[in-house]
Amino acid sequence: MIIELQKVLNNEIPLTNAIGICVEDYTDNAIKISAPLENNINHKNTAFGGSLYSISVLAGWSLLFALLKENNRQGHIVIHESNIRFHKPVNGNIIASCQIDDEIALNRFLKIFDRKGISRINLTSTIQQDGDDAVIFKGTYVVHK
Amino acid sequence: MIIELQKVLNNEIPLTNAIGICVEDYTDNAIKISAPLENNINHKNTAFGGSLYSISVLAGWSLLFALLKENNRQGHIVIHESNIRFHKPVNGNIIASCQIDDEIALNRFLKIFDRKGISRINLTSTIQQDGDDAVIFKGTYVVHK
Repeated sequence: MIIELQKVLNNEIPLTNAIGICVEDYTDNAIKISAPLENNINHKNTAFGGSLYSISVLAGWSLLFALLKENNRQGHIVIHESNIRFHKPVNGNIIASCQIDDEIALNRFLKIFDRKGISRINLTSTIQQDGDDAVIFKGTYVVHK
Repeated sequence: MIIELQKVLNNEIPLTNAIGICVEDYTDNAIKISAPLENNINHKNTAFGGSLYSISVLAGWSLLFALLKENNRQGHIVIHESNIRFHKPVNGNIIASCQIDDEIALNRFLKIFDRKGISRINLTSTIQQDGDDAVIFKGTYVVHK
């Protein structure tokens, strides 16, 4: 799944190559994707907010891609709305984590997708720096057939 | 100002080169920046959400950069928090517009900056598609000395 996801991201969203996106891990409904600071540096030698957003939104997108596949569904995943807070600068390797802890919410999401052909789900991605949440991203994704 | 801004963006945030950011216009407290769809395409042949966010956040950043300069202030501009809504897909040249209509809010922002050395301002960037707002970005920027 990790290799497939990496290929999909790099082929279908070419900017992920410039960002240096790397799918690090996918296990137990949780995903980690990373990117080097160097590709994403800003005027303050920390990570550019647009890069942090891109990596965060892709973590959620990738998690949904993998979960749909594992649950034998096919759908188009799009981001509909999101909020991102930058609590502190990121000045090292950028790693965004996204997971679904709520098995009930996931099942509800899939049930509605099956019935209506369209469903939405809220996901949170975080990027840590020195043990703290430096970036908190909350996105509403829509998946449709 | 347009040439200076273009140079600053390309030199200090290298990802803007991959995105293809172009400062189109700056006049009367309003800025337009663009990027070609090609550099920012996604799996659905429309603009990638991370690119739309990056272009929107940079429109606000660039407007503040220009306004500070024109008002003889120097400061570091950072994005603190933002919300972005994707109302419809963008499938052509991407143009983000950001402006400050409220002269009173601008003066209050500058006054607080002078007094406290730090100030915040809310800005809205929009990206249109076929005459409608396809993307609405609302960001809170912090400027500090």
